[in-house]
This record gives sequence, structure tokens and C-alpha cells, in this order.
Amino acid sequence: MSIAPITDLSRLCIHTITTKPWSIEEAVRNFSAGGVKGITVWRDALSGRDIKKTGDMLRQNGLSVVSLCRGGFFPSKDPLKRQTAIDDNRRAIDEAFELGTRLIVLVCGADPAQSHEDSRKQIYDGISAVLPEAESAGVRVAIEPLHPMYADTRSAINTIAQANEMAEKLNSNWVGVAVDVYHLWWDPLLEEGIERCGRNNKLLAFHICDWKSPTVDLLNDRGLMGEGCIPIRKIRSWVDATGFNGFIEVEIFSNEYWKQDQSQFLKKIITAYYNHV
Amino acid sequence: MSIAPITDLSRLCIHTITTKPWSIEEAVRNFSAGGVKGITVWRDALSGRDIKKTGDMLRQNGLSVVSLCRGGFFPSKDPLKRQTAIDDNRRAIDEAFELGTRLIVLVCGADPAQSHEDSRKQIYDGISAVLPEAESAGVRVAIEPLHPMYADTRSAINTIAQANEMAEKLNSNWVGVAVDVYHLWWDPLLEEGIERCGRNNKLLAFHICDWKSPTVDLLNDRGLMGEGCIPIRKIRSWVDATGFNGFIEVEIFSNEYWKQDQSQFLKKIITAYYNHV
Repeated sequence: MSIAPITDLSRLCIHTITTKPWSIEEAVRNFSAGGVKGITVWRDALSGRDIKKTGDMLRQNGLSVVSLCRGGFFPSKDPLKRQTAIDDNRRAIDEAFELGTRLIVLVCGADPAQSHEDSRKQIYDGISAVLPEAESAGVRVAIEPLHPMYADTRSAINTIAQANEMAEKLNSNWVGVAVDVYHLWWDPLLEEGIERCGRNNKLLAFHICDWKSPTVDLLNDRGLMGEGCIPIRKIRSWVDATGFNGFIEVEIFSNEYWKQDQSQFLKKIITAYYNHV
Repeated sequence: MSIAPITDLSRLCIHTITTKPWSIEEAVRNFSAGGVKGITVWRDALSGRDIKKTGDMLRQNGLSVVSLCRGGFFPSKDPLKRQTAIDDNRRAIDEAFELGTRLIVLVCGADPAQSHEDSRKQIYDGISAVLPEAESAGVRVAIEPLHPMYADTRSAINTIAQANEMAEKLNSNWVGVAVDVYHLWWDPLLEEGIERCGRNNKLLAFHICDWKSPTVDLLNDRGLMGEGCIPIRKIRSWVDATGFNGFIEVEIFSNEYWKQDQSQFLKKIITAYYNHV
């Protein structure tokens, strides 16, 4: 199968964490000048800012505010910590509303002191608890399945099938799924899971980067598209086949790239986006 | 559900790599004195030895030779490398025969330069190619599904379902599956996969260790049983429920433990085996 390459930047979104050394103001100026059309904002990038004014500034620079990263981390053996997490997710929904984005990505969480079954029950309960606020703010939440190497502390949802099941069980138009190729590329049921997600109108976000060989850090050694073994274009074609026409979001955590000149890095991202997405 | 703890060491096997600083001669002496009843031999531990005499030495010290680690690494885009891998697996079968063990564990391999589908086809072809030698040597091969964080270069088989499917498709009494809790603990289909594996008489080996939080190295930071979040006893109960009564194999790669006094480490392994398996 031949898959048509990307021919313009109209769907390119970059996460603020991808160019972490830049303040959000620097990121916006450079993204905008480079022709990038969307931005996903990590909550730390808003620290000390007026959130509403920051959202206006993003839009005035021609950027769509694709999502806010991130909510979640619901599970804990400790009920007080579970309540703290729910409160924090309500704050995230307020922030998303202020910022003017319609989506929050959830890293759902896991507590290694308890079973995955218990953690998933608490994820279900936690998301349920914040859905009224999400609905009244007009903000949807996307369950992002995380790679199994994060199954101890970051997420008890590690496959596309588990994310679909959780989203379907929550049975709300305000809940969907975020597909990130880094977390899911190895999943033997990914293609059918993306199809099912799309058929249920639950595919809310699509994140890309690459898996380097070797990967030397569990968290911060993600690759630029084309540097690794992920069949990004093939997965993008599965996503597009569902009818998804939203942004394609570059989310790269990389100690290596964060050390480099960020303007050069942005150019590399744009080149890689054309060549490998 | 209450699961009966282990009450003796009759099923305890330790991999030579677990106590890597020891030569195989030192390992055997210490395992035997500690009451360990089985040993799995990594091929590097045999370097420069007469393999048949080494096997005799293991048995004379009261140790069952549970398996030889490891064969596999079949996939490559390069046909010459695929043939080299097949030749090496034939040598491993000869070595297993000489050593007097009836099992080789396979780390099946993956080539990041090609798709997982292609890698799995080459795994199928590679195992098929060596089955006549396996049968004539009386040596079975166990497909070990590997954690998805090794999906780039070490294995394109990353779930219990994929291992079952491959073993069933090969349709030979000389092929089965090795279950390692480190690789599979997160797999939402693990319990049913173990049941299916046992029902097909394909459950050939059971490996244990633990997943530490945080894990600081992708390869060599495995934990001692009880140090992490893997529900080892629960998984052991699923394995035992199939009728499996073979050895329970401690396979720990750990820069931290390899730095410590290995006699003390052996004592910790035995205590952890009673308390957490």
C-alpha cells in the first residue's frame, strides 16, 4: 500500500515540552514563524502566567490550542491522595477552559502498591467524578494508553484495547482516547483498536515521535520521526482511515534534543514531519 | 483468594547470569550448598569448558539442568544474517544436548529495519528450520515473549497471546512457551494466556524477578522478588493451575546486585523465594 505523504503544515502541532528550553512565549513566536499551526500546552508552561491572556496570545499568533497536558494520576491506595488527584483534575479542567482548549490528555496513573485491577477501578471512578465539570466546561478528556514500561507508576492502561474498553465503559461523549505511536507501536492489536476507536467517535488526539535503538533512558530519550523503528506513516494512515482529520502532535521528550539549539531542532521537526509522517 | 506459599526449595532454579560474577563452578558449589535444586545455564558460562563434563559436574552436585539460555535472534533484513542465526541455533541445540538439558529458551529477535510482521515471519521460518535438529537431539525450544520495551531489537513477540499463536502455528511437540513475569506482568490477557498455554501443553518454563520503581536501566535493573510491583505469587498460582510443576527460575540482571557479595545475594534470593513466590 502506498500512503500519501503530508504536503503542508496545516495539521502540525507541537507540544511545549518538545522544545522545553523555550518559554511558551518563545515557543509561540518560533512555531508561528515556522508555519506550525497548533500547540499543545503542558501545564508547567503556564506557571506564573494569566492563563486566559496566554490562550489569547496563542490564537493571536495563529496557533490552535489543541490540548492541555495533562490530567490523570487517579489511582492511589490512599483515599486522600485519590481525592487530591480528583481536585487537581478539576483544576486542570478550569485551566483548559481558561486557555480556550477543548481537550485534556490524561496520563491515568497506577499505584505499584496495589493491583492493576484496583488502579483501573480508581481510574474509572476518578474520571467519572470529574465528568460533570468537563461537560459544563465543554472540555473533553482523552485516555492515553501508556507503554508497558510505565505500567508501575504512570498508567494501568497499556494497550489500545484497554483504553477503548475504559472509554466505552465510561460511556460519555466527553471521554475519548489519545493515540501515541511511542506507547502503542508494538501493540499487535493497534490497527483494529484504532479502527474501533474511530468507529465509536472516540479518537481525540494523535501523538508522534520515534523509538530509538538503543533507547538509553526510560523517559527522556524519544527520537525524532524517522530516527527509529516506529512505522509512523502506516499508523497515521490507520488514524486517517477513521476519518480523523485533527492535528498530528509532535511530543518528544529528549535530553539530547533539549541540549541543542531549539531553532535548529524546530527545523528538523518540520523536515521530519514531511519525510516520515 | 489465598495462595499457598512455597514451603521448600525443590522447585528453585537459578540462572547463571543471576550471579554473573561467579564462574559456573563457583555458582554450582554455592547453589548446591544453599539447597538450590536447579540451574539454567547461559551459554557464556560454558566458554572454554568441556560442555559434557560441565553437565556431569552440575548433576553430580545435585542440580537439574533446567535449560540453556539462549537461542533465537532469527530476524534480519539480511538473508546472510538469518542463515548465521539458524546455524547458531543449531549449535545451541548441540550444546544443550551435550550439556544434558532438554530445553532451550528463545529470545526470538527483531530487526528495527523492517516491520514486526516481517520479523515474525522470519522467527517462524527460523524456528521451523531448526526443528528437525531439536527433535533428533530431544531438545525443546521455548518462545519467550519479551517486554514491549525490547520490541525494537530483541523480540517481535511481546505478549502471551503472540507467543501462544506462534507456538500453535509451529504445531510441533518440540515448541512451547517460556513465561517470564518481568516481561508479561502488565499484560491484561496474561491469566487467560497462561491457561491456554497450559491447556495446549506448551508451558515449558517459568521465570521470576521483580519490577522496581523506579527502574533506572532498560536491561540491567531487575529487582529481587518482593522489591517491586509484580504480583509474582498470583502469577505463579495461574502457572501452577495449569498443572505445571516444573522449576521456578530466578533470572535477575542487575548492575546493583552484581556489585554485591554474591553469597549474601544468594541468601536474599532464597529468603525472597519463600516470602514472595
